Amino acid sequence: MALKLSYFDIRGLAEPVRLLLVDKQVAFEDHRIARDQWAEIKPKMIFGQVPCLLSGDEELVQSGAILRHLGRVHGLNGNNETETTFIDMFYEGIRDLHNKYAQMIYGNYENGKDAYIKDTLPGELARLEKLFRTYKNGEHYVAGDKESYADYVLFEELDIHLILSPTALDATPVLKKFHERFAERPNIKAYLNKRAAINPPVNGNGKQ
Amino acid sequence: MALKLSYFDIRGLAEPVRLLLVDKQVAFEDHRIARDQWAEIKPKMIFGQVPCLLSGDEELVQSGAILRHLGRVHGLNGNNETETTFIDMFYEGIRDLHNKYAQMIYGNYENGKDAYIKDTLPGELARLEKLFRTYKNGEHYVAGDKESYADYVLFEELDIHLILSPTALDATPVLKKFHERFAERPNIKAYLNKRAAINPPVNGNGKQ
Repeated sequence: MALKLSYFDIRGLAEPVRLLLVDKQVAFEDHRIARDQWAEIKPKMIFGQVPCLLSGDEELVQSGAILRHLGRVHGLNGNNETETTFIDMFYEGIRDLHNKYAQMIYGNYENGKDAYIKDTLPGELARLEKLFRTYKNGEHYVAGDKESYADYVLFEELDIHLILSPTALDATPVLKKFHERFAERPNIKAYLNKRAAINPPVNGNGKQ
Repeated sequence: MALKLSYFDIRGLAEPVRLLLVDKQVAFEDHRIARDQWAEIKPKMIFGQVPCLLSGDEELVQSGAILRHLGRVHGLNGNNETETTFIDMFYEGIRDLHNKYAQMIYGNYENGKDAYIKDTLPGELARLEKLFRTYKNGEHYVAGDKESYADYVLFEELDIHLILSPTALDATPVLKKFHERFAERPNIKAYLNKRAAINPPVNGNGKQ
């Protein structure tokens, strides 16, 4: 099934999807929408939003729905109902953090960045670290021995927070180690090296 | 498996879960947290949030994850991958609308209600109506002949918008008919009658 992922030429909400597809070696067209094309494309999207994954003739939108779909299709959704639900909860927990991050990035970067790093982030990361240790004390993946779609989202979320603050993970060693390990996966490493040469913006407004 | 749903004594994010459980006749303890108990309970929750569904000894949080779990367990998640993804997308679309509703209710009710009803809501509902007509022209449920967890969420979302504005659905006749049909399901109807006698607040700040 031919896949085409449409999004802006930034990392943003599409990057975890790209990481998943690249790591699982699923071929896809990485369609990057230029800013001046957006006004024409927006009304064609179901909710006026991207990312959009065109899978055959099916148009999939909403990042969460896209990720869970890919999770089911590529064996990245847990081995049983308990794991599937845990992965889902974990993903939603990362999403809550990302919403706070996005509010700061898009709404209050200049005046809010320092307070976000100092007051908001540590508690959020501590909660994720605690949850991450549920399976195998966090030595492998979100749901234990086997990777899931939430691992790609977690990796990207940690990665952009390290850009925001290079010491962000110092108080959460288990998450820090996960980030280091995940970056060494051969397909991810090759992608990250390639991406580094292009260095696309993390967010739509160029702040990071 | 004994189920206990913990939430505040309002409709809010728990009501679609309650509707689903009541309609499918799944027994559960409807635990309502009093405001003065919350400070004690909050730190015990994984993300410091409710709703929380205790299923045996598993603690499930995040409304979306709870609903998708119940969808899988009670046959409310579509008949195939296409339907499952569609239901998920539809749910996320309702959630986007609900976030806008909640921002107005909690952040700008007095000055923002009229503009929300006039400028924001019509486009959002038109988009949902269009999507709702994907299967069987919207004559039955979100995903056609069989109900899904998204139907309970859609019903509640339409219901609270009719409280906000009794004419809210006049421009989206297919959604309006769905709301009327769904309210006539015997278990839902009995629940709504019982609830009407108690009349719990829709939202935590008493605005609606």
